Amino acid sequence: MPVSITFNVDADLLKQCAEILGEPVTVDREGSGDVKIVATKYAINSNTRLIQSIYASLDNLNLRDIPPQVKVCNNPGAFADSAAEQAFALILPAVKKIFYHNLRTHKRIFKKEPVQTLKNKTIGILGYGEVGSRIAKIARAFQMNVIAYTRTQKDDPNVDQFAASPARLIAQSDILVISLPLTNSTRGLINSDALNMFNGNLIVNISKAEVVNKADIYWYLKRLPEKIYATDVWWNEPAIVDDVPENCIFTPHEGSEVPGDFNEAVLNACRNARKFMDGVELNVIDPAEYYKVH
Amino acid sequence: MPVSITFNVDADLLKQCAEILGEPVTVDREGSGDVKIVATKYAINSNTRLIQSIYASLDNLNLRDIPPQVKVCNNPGAFADSAAEQAFALILPAVKKIFYHNLRTHKRIFKKEPVQTLKNKTIGILGYGEVGSRIAKIARAFQMNVIAYTRTQKDDPNVDQFAASPARLIAQSDILVISLPLTNSTRGLINSDALNMFNGNLIVNISKAEVVNKADIYWYLKRLPEKIYATDVWWNEPAIVDDVPENCIFTPHEGSEVPGDFNEAVLNACRNARKFMDGVELNVIDPAEYYKVH
Repeated sequence: MPVSITFNVDADLLKQCAEILGEPVTVDREGSGDVKIVATKYAINSNTRLIQSIYASLDNLNLRDIPPQVKVCNNPGAFADSAAEQAFALILPAVKKIFYHNLRTHKRIFKKEPVQTLKNKTIGILGYGEVGSRIAKIARAFQMNVIAYTRTQKDDPNVDQFAASPARLIAQSDILVISLPLTNSTRGLINSDALNMFNGNLIVNISKAEVVNKADIYWYLKRLPEKIYATDVWWNEPAIVDDVPENCIFTPHEGSEVPGDFNEAVLNACRNARKFMDGVELNVIDPAEYYKVH
Repeated sequence: MPVSITFNVDADLLKQCAEILGEPVTVDREGSGDVKIVATKYAINSNTRLIQSIYASLDNLNLRDIPPQVKVCNNPGAFADSAAEQAFALILPAVKKIFYHNLRTHKRIFKKEPVQTLKNKTIGILGYGEVGSRIAKIARAFQMNVIAYTRTQKDDPNVDQFAASPARLIAQSDILVISLPLTNSTRGLINSDALNMFNGNLIVNISKAEVVNKADIYWYLKRLPEKIYATDVWWNEPAIVDDVPENCIFTPHEGSEVPGDFNEAVLNACRNARKFMDGVELNVIDPAEYYKVH
């Protein structure tokens, strides 16, 4: 069963992919193989059996009009360790006011102020997939209380409680971390209603900007200067159309910029495609959930 | 056996102390009790049995001329959780260049750059007491390799290897964290020789500034602008006598500024003093190790 890879890979990585897949592999921007390992673009033809994304999220694919016989797989875990690290790289400076203190000390002002801890704070993890579970593990090491929301509740020693709804989670969280996929049901989920329920001071987004309603969070941050929105993602990346609010800590999608992570994601996508060809369907998603409805 | 507390405590905390100690307790700046719970000052008289610090470190006490019959106890674990959090609040922004990226995004520049991870990096923990062991636990959750140096090696599932000497530890570390007490043998330990052995890019100090030779690290940071010294402590706090190097991330001793930590440290000191009175000598130190030799 021919396999195509729809983005540039170097010869060494291509060789590793072919070894895993055990099939002829071509690098082909549209994807002419029956099985397509894809980043963004692909074409569907009558032989297409599988669209295998190298990303955990699928919102950058056009998933409309996929015939039912074509399966679509995501790649959970790709970049997940880095995303979880990025979450804490956003959380800790916010909680500890590192920018503020560092600026003052560089002006030679040494002034202690009461500081917050992560210990005993409640972190609410909205979306409990691979990224969420890695966040929970780290949060546990910081002695945080961990609550999570996921549609498919699971037993997890790192979670104290799975919330019955996003609203319940938001209302109970001191720190809210968004690690949801962007789907029809999560787009704009963090809107004014959700923000009004939130009693904590820090919202962290390491998934997709569009889970958050831009106008609503801008208004929220303007009205409540003590609240912080710390994010690794932005609406319409890479454009930054409006001024970034001061109480926003913002890194440019650095969670997926770890050298080596890309290759590992590609190889992992190939492993899942190999399983699919062997009749084991893992990580198959429903494209209808990801339709972009404008 | 009368107990005195040599710093201000409110009535409620005093009551809690008295309950733990089961003895009359007075608040008395010099400490007239046979057992003295101390922060900085105390006087020794002929009845003095125990000097119990509320801090893990003792370098702020004048420990000279302590008669051999007077025991001195430190308070390991006091502020340790907060210090370990502060370590990662210094590590993550440095490794992830959060200041740099945040400044750029606020200028509306969205530009990804390769980012480093903690995962698979080696953290060297110099001084493996209560703070060090908490750091190791968090480092493990970040999937780091953990090496440590301590004079009293211990079995610890969070440590991959105990180094035979500080030099061995320094040479093997990607990130070096200083969590040593300040004693005669640790004062100035991080000098030019030590810095020359270090192949990593980040040194973090959450213990005492004077473990690091100031002139040597200033020269090191000036000569090697890619290296970062991230510290919560400074020489001669609160004075900042010289300009702070640009490649220094510096918070003003925030690791011990957590509301509630102070009271918990006092109560823990009282618990240890109670054990002492019951004949169980825990956390007794050798004052000679802490003499300030100028």
